[in-house]
Amino acid sequence: MKKGTFITVEGGEGAGKTTVLMSVEQQLKERGYEVVCTREPGGVLLAERIRALLLHTHDIDMDERTEALLYAAARREHLMKKIVPALQRGQIVLCDRFIDSSLAYQGYAREIGVEEVRAINMFAVESYMPELTLYFSLDPSVGLTRIEKDQGRERNRLDHEKLYFHEQVKAGYETLANKHCDRIKMIDASEPLPKVIKNVMIHIDSVL
Amino acid sequence: MKKGTFITVEGGEGAGKTTVLMSVEQQLKERGYEVVCTREPGGVLLAERIRALLLHTHDIDMDERTEALLYAAARREHLMKKIVPALQRGQIVLCDRFIDSSLAYQGYAREIGVEEVRAINMFAVESYMPELTLYFSLDPSVGLTRIEKDQGRERNRLDHEKLYFHEQVKAGYETLANKHCDRIKMIDASEPLPKVIKNVMIHIDSVL
Ligand SMILES: Nc1ncnc2c1ncn2[C@@H]1O[C@H](COP(=O)(O)OP(=O)(O)OP(=O)(O)O)[C@@H](O)[C@H]1O
Ligand SMILES: Nc1ncnc2c1ncn2[C@@H]1O[C@H](COP(=O)(O)OP(=O)(O)OP(=O)(O)O)[C@@H](O)[C@H]1O
Ligand SMILES: [Mg+2]
Ligand SMILES: [Mg+2]
Repeated sequence: MKKGTFITVEGGEGAGKTTVLMSVEQQLKERGYEVVCTREPGGVLLAERIRALLLHTHDIDMDERTEALLYAAARREHLMKKIVPALQRGQIVLCDRFIDSSLAYQGYAREIGVEEVRAINMFAVESYMPELTLYFSLDPSVGLTRIEKDQGRERNRLDHEKLYFHEQVKAGYETLANKHCDRIKMIDASEPLPKVIKNVMIHIDSVL
Repeated sequence: MKKGTFITVEGGEGAGKTTVLMSVEQQLKERGYEVVCTREPGGVLLAERIRALLLHTHDIDMDERTEALLYAAARREHLMKKIVPALQRGQIVLCDRFIDSSLAYQGYAREIGVEEVRAINMFAVESYMPELTLYFSLDPSVGLTRIEKDQGRERNRLDHEKLYFHEQVKAGYETLANKHCDRIKMIDASEPLPKVIKNVMIHIDSVL
């Protein structure tokens, strides 16, 4: 018996992931599905504590590999305490960023090496890979401009990274999308929001 | 030019690692060597914070893989912020437990799998493997009895694990020692303290 459906959404800052997921969650619930919409650290206590170390240590010059290991640790807790139980209850899990974020950000853009970052993340994720991953493709300068207009939004370290870094992230995601084209579906995130939502729903319907 | 010498000491609880290292550090300093004697997290701020999550979360049922990733993260910080700088200054680094503890405890005894635990630890350690590792071999029941007599000693989670767990740790260490016999040297830790120290010094002299 198939248990639950694990779907992740990926892409650069301001691509529209969070906005689209809110609408998708709503639509799926209206159709009677049980849906868990989450993002790391997802309210999981230990994962929250790990993420606190990651995002609020501006005082410390954190080593990049330490950072990658901490992301993997927080991912593991979130996965085991929230995602896997929901899948076992047969629910649809929509997750805003997952393993591919680490591969694109730490592996490609921070140049640790994608295969090395994949190794520690496969240790964390084991067999619980998403069935479908929607990659929101968007010119980083467009995404960053969207975010700047959005005054209420919480800032973190990455917002201050140079545009070049975000171009590298995009190149990383594209390499991943091409390599894992069975799982990762490309979404043109430059289109108007209703069109993006519609395209996302078509892919989700194909796995439900 | 060879830079520094990285030596680690491994073994079960109460085998005498910390006691012996204090004496060895003293002797090497008397002979004019610059010595850094350390143990994870080694006073490195971020590593301390990570270890605090590990040792003081009795309230949370921590996933074993999360635990292994956090140990690897703390190891990385301690390595990069304390061990590597000392080696670059040409010093002798004596480290009380390192990668082999994770392989024996998480990999073998907790049954995550030694190759999987090795993968995340090689990500953390990269090329900075110890030149010499002294494995203190001792019947776990003897080690645990030594510790119980030692009233001033700080307790942590592992002291309460069942004897079976410690037998598994010992079996893990022995497998490692046999496999990496060039690096890992077996020390009979059941011998009287002065004899153990003497045997350790012979191996250290051979790499200086
Ligand atoms: N297709 C779209 N066209 C125009 N604006 C959009 C579109 N999608 C989202 N936006 C707007 O862009 C801003 C960023 O969107 P959102 O926060 O959903 O992005 P995100 O991908 O979740 O970013 P982050 O990775 O930083 O969390 C919001 O103000 C949102 O309303
Ligand atoms: N060779 C020995 N013979 C008898 N007692 C010893 C010997 N070596 C150490 N001890 C005593 O055993 C106790 C534990 O030693 P120690 O704390 O050095 O062990 P350890 O290997 O560092 O343990 P842990 O892994 O728990 O840190 C101490 O009281 C110490 O004095
Ligand atoms: Mg978002
Ligand atoms: Mg000790």
